[in-house]
This record gives sequence, C-alpha cells and structure tokens, in this order.
Amino acid sequence: MKLYGMRASGNCYKALLAASMLGIELEWIETDLFQGETRTPQFLAKNPNGKVPLLELDDGRGLAESNAILCYLADGTPLLPSGRFERAQVLQWLFFKQYSHEPYVAVARFIAKFLPIDHPRRADLPRLREKSREALAVMDGELATRAYLAESGFSVADIALFAYTHEAPAAGISLDEFPHVTAWLSRVRAMPGFIPQ
Amino acid sequence: MKLYGMRASGNCYKALLAASMLGIELEWIETDLFQGETRTPQFLAKNPNGKVPLLELDDGRGLAESNAILCYLADGTPLLPSGRFERAQVLQWLFFKQYSHEPYVAVARFIAKFLPIDHPRRADLPRLREKSREALAVMDGELATRAYLAESGFSVADIALFAYTHEAPAAGISLDEFPHVTAWLSRVRAMPGFIPQ
Repeated sequence: MKLYGMRASGNCYKALLAASMLGIELEWIETDLFQGETRTPQFLAKNPNGKVPLLELDDGRGLAESNAILCYLADGTPLLPSGRFERAQVLQWLFFKQYSHEPYVAVARFIAKFLPIDHPRRADLPRLREKSREALAVMDGELATRAYLAESGFSVADIALFAYTHEAPAAGISLDEFPHVTAWLSRVRAMPGFIPQ
Repeated sequence: MKLYGMRASGNCYKALLAASMLGIELEWIETDLFQGETRTPQFLAKNPNGKVPLLELDDGRGLAESNAILCYLADGTPLLPSGRFERAQVLQWLFFKQYSHEPYVAVARFIAKFLPIDHPRRADLPRLREKSREALAVMDGELATRAYLAESGFSVADIALFAYTHEAPAAGISLDEFPHVTAWLSRVRAMPGFIPQ
C-alpha cells in the first residue's frame, strides 16, 4: 500500500505511526500541500477533497481522512476492538479529536510554528489556546482513571490524539497542568513500534 | 436506551433519524444547551465534554459524539457495512462531514438562523459559505457517479451528511448549483423510516 502524506503534518504522521505499531509496511510518497501537490489533477483524481494523508490500496482504491485510515489499518486487531460498544467508544474519541481537539491544538501549532511573528492570524492564538486547554482537560480527567483513552485499552484513539497532543508545547500550550496527559504521552512513546515525528 | 439531545440541533436530529430508520426505539430527553443543561454537574458526569447528543445505554454506560452514536446504532446492519474497506469508506465520509462540512455549513446555518442581524459574527458568513460550497462540490462530484455517498450503498454516512446539508438554504447557501446533492436529498427523504427535522 502507498501512503501519500506530508511528514510535517500530524495527521500524516499518525497514519505512519499506526502502520509502524501494527507492523504494516507502507510506501511513503511525500506530497507537499504547500507546493500545491494535493491540488494537481492527478491527485484530485485520487482524492477529490484534495487532502493528505491518502492511503492507496494495491488494487488502486483510495481511502482519505486520517482517522478512517487508522481504522482501516487497525481493523481486526486490538487497536480497533470488535465489540459493538468498545468499537463505538474508540470512534467517540476519534470524533472528539476531530471536532474538539484538532481545530484548536493543531491550528494553534500551525500558527505558532509556521506563520511569521507579525501575521494577523496570531490574534487567534489566545482563543485557540483556551479551547485547546478545554480539550486537554477532558482528556486529563479521563486519563486520571485509566491508562488509555478507551476503556478497552490502547487503541487507535490514543494514536490519533497523540499526534497533535505531543506538539501542544509547540503551540504555546504548557502540559504542566495536565499531569495525566503527560504520563499518557510517555506510555504511548514506550509502545512497541513507536516512531517519533 | 435514552438519547439526550436538543431537537433544533442537526447532530441530535441525525441520531434520532438513524434510530427511526433502523427501527430502534429511544427515549428522547430534551436537553437545552442554550439553557446550560449540558453543563450541570449531573450532565458532565455523563459526558465530561458537556455536549449533546449523548446516548445512554440501559446499563448506564454513555456514548458521546453523534457520529459514534450512529455507528453504534447501525453496527451489524447494512447501514454500517462489515467489510474492512467498505466500513472504512463510510467512516471516511463521517470524518469528512466532521472536518470539511459541518464547521462551515452548520456554523453558517447557526449564525444566519439564530444570531441577530447586526451580530459581528455575521462577518464570517462569506468565508463560511465559500468553504461550504467547496464541501458541497466534493459531494456533488461523487454523487454524480452513484446514488449514495459510500460505494456500498445507503449508510450512516448519508444520514450524517443529510442532517446539515438539507439546511444549507437556511445558511444562505443555494443548492441550485449542486443538482446531484439535491437529487440525493430527495432519495434520503424517500427512505423507509425517514422523519423530518
């Protein structure tokens, strides 16, 4: 299988991290969205939404959306449990990530890390950091009671939320006030197959 | 099972719509977020993220995130296919909805429908409508080639994306330029068990 992605992106990294932890070999094809490589006619034929990561199966079928890729890669393994409630709970965390976490933590990271110091979008940072802290507080409360996000144990939910949470300091968000999140990041880093971004 | 939700919310409506289409009986508990009912200690004990909809199973376990609730309700039915790729493709559309559609269409609808005519957030409407049209164009392109979003046929992906797409005109977004989306909305409305919002 081929994975089209940009290594600097947390969403692309997490697909690579899941493959590594699952022992799945992928051919990585660096695709730079800043250079317009996700907007070429060739790429849009593969993913009409013009985004990476994109997983291309050996038969040519494509799968977009990083969290859907994680579920595909992990299907049939403990990283995506098969029980009806347990699986839905992992999905709950993936949707939490997509709606309550990434639009704040990942966007704050992007602005703080990549935009010039006088860029007008820096005015958004206080609000983004406040919303980021709300999401991290929810995670911290849950991780106070168990080792991993889903009750079934380590899963793709942890991989998905690791990808940008570990970069919170780069977004100007201290993790000092979230000790359970900090301990959980260390547990994820200690998992077999872990690779740093 | 109990469903805590606010009827005016598209995300709550879609859980109700899925249950109706699947023939699952739910006890609806109206929970008004504008009145702070999702921020009471009692509700936060059920969902630490303080959001509706929330599904409460008969044994008291809770499941948050509307798209995870759809997957739970549809598990084991054709609305969430069991094949590895087919299931992942349904999830792909759910994540597309969450990241590329709802933050624009649903937010534009909220501002246009509920905020006063002189509210400063109305300045966001042109950008939100432009991004909404991008998402609708992706859907229109796919729906030009088949009847439903996922290749496996009608699924929770259609239910999830119906919920706010049918309200696009209330967000000030004409659907006239998206004929395949318009035809698909009619097909969804004609499905057994359909209930209007």
